[in-house]
Amino acid sequence: MPDQNTKTAACAERFDAACKIIVDAGKLALDYFERRGSLAIEMKTSGQDLVSAADRDVEDFLRQAISARFPEDGLYGEENGQKPGTSHYRWLMDPIDGTSCFLHGLQSWGVVIALFHQDTPVAGLIYEPCTGQLYTAKLGEGAHRNGTKIHVNDTTPFSGGFIAVGATRREHGPHIGGLIAAVMANGGVYMRNGSAALSLAHVAAGHYLAYYEPVLNAWDCVAGLLIVSEAGGDVDDFPLSSDFSKKGPCLAGSAAAAEKLRDILGTLEMAAGG
Amino acid sequence: MPDQNTKTAACAERFDAACKIIVDAGKLALDYFERRGSLAIEMKTSGQDLVSAADRDVEDFLRQAISARFPEDGLYGEENGQKPGTSHYRWLMDPIDGTSCFLHGLQSWGVVIALFHQDTPVAGLIYEPCTGQLYTAKLGEGAHRNGTKIHVNDTTPFSGGFIAVGATRREHGPHIGGLIAAVMANGGVYMRNGSAALSLAHVAAGHYLAYYEPVLNAWDCVAGLLIVSEAGGDVDDFPLSSDFSKKGPCLAGSAAAAEKLRDILGTLEMAAGG
Repeated sequence: MPDQNTKTAACAERFDAACKIIVDAGKLALDYFERRGSLAIEMKTSGQDLVSAADRDVEDFLRQAISARFPEDGLYGEENGQKPGTSHYRWLMDPIDGTSCFLHGLQSWGVVIALFHQDTPVAGLIYEPCTGQLYTAKLGEGAHRNGTKIHVNDTTPFSGGFIAVGATRREHGPHIGGLIAAVMANGGVYMRNGSAALSLAHVAAGHYLAYYEPVLNAWDCVAGLLIVSEAGGDVDDFPLSSDFSKKGPCLAGSAAAAEKLRDILGTLEMAAGG
Repeated sequence: MPDQNTKTAACAERFDAACKIIVDAGKLALDYFERRGSLAIEMKTSGQDLVSAADRDVEDFLRQAISARFPEDGLYGEENGQKPGTSHYRWLMDPIDGTSCFLHGLQSWGVVIALFHQDTPVAGLIYEPCTGQLYTAKLGEGAHRNGTKIHVNDTTPFSGGFIAVGATRREHGPHIGGLIAAVMANGGVYMRNGSAALSLAHVAAGHYLAYYEPVLNAWDCVAGLLIVSEAGGDVDDFPLSSDFSKKGPCLAGSAAAAEKLRDILGTLEMAAGG
């Protein structure tokens, strides 16, 4: 099957390039992060504007690095829109996931890349510059952190395990408050680190049992969902549109924890008359 | 005032010793943390038992290191009870704060020491072994991270700022769920990293605006409360008993965020008919 071999080689070539590009992008972001106090003063700008500048610069770096190597591929990013390609490959980037953490000096933010072959995610990469941890997966080949295989946590029971719950929108307060109360009633321990991508990475590595957020963008979570799935986890399908503009809920975890979380969400929905 | 000078020198001597002892204790804990997978297999024990063993060993190390230097001081720890002393100084230790994080492989756990002169906390130290960050404060002399002065965040408004909310007990579910919904309704962004001490450290360093947990032990939070206070923050008094066995709620933040959080908690209490 030469077509399949060609596809595998093309994907592997892109994955290997992405592993290097994402770390270089992370170094650029980390430089902004470490100098953000003095830069804000020097550039006479607010912290928020500085984060936006870092976000744009890191995405530009990713776009240029990928284009230089694979000029025929499509590029889609959070910051700078889309550049459709002529090959079957498309790259979806989030230069800084967890921008509030970045802004407020917390280490839990990351650079995220998802690689698609047509409409299928075939590789996911999440790099955490402050810790130097690179989480990766290729479709059908398992998940790794810095080259070491990782697996979701199938042994810790829901009661006593970490359940990460994310949310950013004010109007989700009652839903999230109800969910956290229900997670606690079931013995689960809620967590929130401020980065969707790193929350999924922690699920894949077995630190969290599961993660849920009611609304995310594709660039926040598609890479992480593939990594969790390749780490033996159970993930809900995320809705994908051709330009990646569609938003949707994100749920992932070990099989048992994901099921429990779906049950809890279903019960809440019924109680809310949904 | 020779008495005051003697006291200041005695406190400074203990603080300087504590800065070294806590880092050495952290290295011991980190060694357990990094080898916890293989150690659990080797010792044919559960991860939970291994964490307990690490907790006890690190506390033993702290006790021996402090006793060797200040044999007349009182020692109080989470794991190994109390040894009243004959001097005016008492040490309160939490060898591993955030044991669930330690158990599940998350980096957010720390070693904690509070130094008391009679009934007054005069120094607080929190060491995060995975990042090498040491948060310290001496009463009246400000707060520092690795020697650099830190300050609470007085500029970010509640809306858009991080509000850390901790809780471990199942029965607190409705209270915490209601609080998180109310924090979100006010535009705040809830967070939880699994360590009370590091949550307070993040408040002191300005990463979080405020932190609340309904029930803590003195060894979890007295060091951190002093650090927040010395970083210019506003903290609620924590109830102290002579043997440090009393538990209580913990609230700390920038002045504005702490006030807002108290308002929200008051409104919730009224709504609950409290």
